[in-house]
Amino acid sequence: MNVNGVHYRTVWMEGAVVKMINQPLIPRFEIIELPGHRDTAEAIRTMVVRGAGAIGAAAGYGMAQVALEAPDGAGFMDYIERGAETLRHTRPTAQNLFYAIEKVLAAIRSADSVARARRAAVETAEAMADENAAAGEAIGRYGATLIRDGMCVLTHCNAGWLAFVDWGSALAPVYMAARQGKKVFVYADETRPRCQGAQLTAWELQGEGIAHAIIADNAAGYLMRRGEVDMVIVGTDRIAANGDVANKIGTYEKALCAAANNVPFYVAAPTSTIDAACPTGDDIPIEERSQDEVLYITGWDERGELCRVRLAHEGAQARNPAFDVTPARYITAIITEHGIHLPSDLPRPR
Amino acid sequence: MNVNGVHYRTVWMEGAVVKMINQPLIPRFEIIELPGHRDTAEAIRTMVVRGAGAIGAAAGYGMAQVALEAPDGAGFMDYIERGAETLRHTRPTAQNLFYAIEKVLAAIRSADSVARARRAAVETAEAMADENAAAGEAIGRYGATLIRDGMCVLTHCNAGWLAFVDWGSALAPVYMAARQGKKVFVYADETRPRCQGAQLTAWELQGEGIAHAIIADNAAGYLMRRGEVDMVIVGTDRIAANGDVANKIGTYEKALCAAANNVPFYVAAPTSTIDAACPTGDDIPIEERSQDEVLYITGWDERGELCRVRLAHEGAQARNPAFDVTPARYITAIITEHGIHLPSDLPRPR
Repeated sequence: MNVNGVHYRTVWMEGAVVKMINQPLIPRFEIIELPGHRDTAEAIRTMVVRGAGAIGAAAGYGMAQVALEAPDGAGFMDYIERGAETLRHTRPTAQNLFYAIEKVLAAIRSADSVARARRAAVETAEAMADENAAAGEAIGRYGATLIRDGMCVLTHCNAGWLAFVDWGSALAPVYMAARQGKKVFVYADETRPRCQGAQLTAWELQGEGIAHAIIADNAAGYLMRRGEVDMVIVGTDRIAANGDVANKIGTYEKALCAAANNVPFYVAAPTSTIDAACPTGDDIPIEERSQDEVLYITGWDERGELCRVRLAHEGAQARNPAFDVTPARYITAIITEHGIHLPSDLPRPR
Repeated sequence: MNVNGVHYRTVWMEGAVVKMINQPLIPRFEIIELPGHRDTAEAIRTMVVRGAGAIGAAAGYGMAQVALEAPDGAGFMDYIERGAETLRHTRPTAQNLFYAIEKVLAAIRSADSVARARRAAVETAEAMADENAAAGEAIGRYGATLIRDGMCVLTHCNAGWLAFVDWGSALAPVYMAARQGKKVFVYADETRPRCQGAQLTAWELQGEGIAHAIIADNAAGYLMRRGEVDMVIVGTDRIAANGDVANKIGTYEKALCAAANNVPFYVAAPTSTIDAACPTGDDIPIEERSQDEVLYITGWDERGELCRVRLAHEGAQARNPAFDVTPARYITAIITEHGIHLPSDLPRPR
């Protein structure tokens, strides 16, 4: 989507170089150039790129780099296997990462020459990135039908284009509605502890020219009770077979606020997020992350430098569950690239 | 309550000197000495002391200082009136401040000599502080009957002893239960945007030796859904006649989470908080504060200095409602110094 009036994707490839937006530095806009697959692996590991779709695309491009770097002849497949292993070890819980690596690997293996293997690797990586962007755009097209001119949308965390290759999931309907000429206002929960709403969502919305306000996560219920929110749209990390969804911590609280105030609550995600093997939300393991994410916060100091500050006394303890589960009964509908579905009537995953 | 094993009140008087805990510096513990009423007024104005009960006590002590400083003879009452005016202008919306000033003024006016007026002023200020502490202790005694050994209590913002003279409201039952030998664990919502939970509540709990963990406000619903919270206790700034309560932004969300998960939700406050003239919560005006409270956050940097950092892009917009209203139907009971009451059956205010 747009940054200062120019269209960007989160990650792309030019020749043998992978380029990506350096996301931890946002709101500072910086593009990082990764000449080799080891650089790309390091960027994935250090979360220069984050979000399931963007990580998958980056891993695909990293595999394409492996194929371009690999020596001709007998050493080719050895180099490929070692490169895949390097990429696999960057983010060991990212499902899309493994999927992308395997998909490029399969394309390489089925080619009948090194030259064709290289071309197949690049084409497969590009196709996956395009597919991700197209899914976001389709989610946007379906979701935009729910948004009327003048509506206020509340979102939690960042499920915008920065988490995907382009368009995003929860924000795609907003971007599409705005491009259709509808006036949309977005409340962005700041989303403690990591503040992806304040840092990423607000910045994305600014780039697309969408009017918005950041709010403390605590204020969402207040605004819904006052009738200032017309709908909630959030993303999700995993959708269970029964329609329960796991998403960033606090999503469940927003769903309860929406239900108590008759505000429609939508979840937007590509169908690849549906885990048919997971019966209910309670079967989704919830990661508890470092308590330092709660006890400290990072922002920009007066000199424009990133600075980490402590919020509580030395030795303070914290709990830091990173995700929560929102039961299907609080979800009005789930928006995918195939349409708008009741949580009880999900499409079959690809 | 206890700080490093020594009992303190938030504000007290020694001779003609008012002393108070410098609250913006917490978790650094520092006592500030205020030799004259103008110093005390400045401390109230700059929020060295905060919380309705503590502000009232500080204003009472400030008036006692005025009486001690005033010249004998004809200029006595002039000095008194001017001193009262100085104190009134420190926090123009703090109800308890005016109440305390008027009460000391009345004691001074009804005395038949300057010496007796001075003594009456000091005694009235001391009595008000003692009364505030006693109300907190009584809330603690009633509230502790609800807490069983091993329970987990979740609280929002800071309604501990730092907001009063001693004991507090929401935390008083926890402190009393602990002194009765019960094991209690407290989840302290960090309470964005001003983080009073992380900064003040956690520090208070540490001083009293209560096991606790700070959580992002977003995590409260998750913990309740998992059955890790046995009860919620919060304070309140105002109780309407119908039992609706206004409290720090986010309280309403916690009440919805509690209701959805059958967790009892208690509000603790002295009866002076009941506003019989206010029919419902919707009649309570909600202050919207500076958006900088959302866009920036203050903490301690690596050198141990207070440092303010920006969380979003330059020019980002925010909404910052400071309070919300929790309807009476979500409140299990209200704990006052007179007992435990249904929201529909409140005691008459004094």
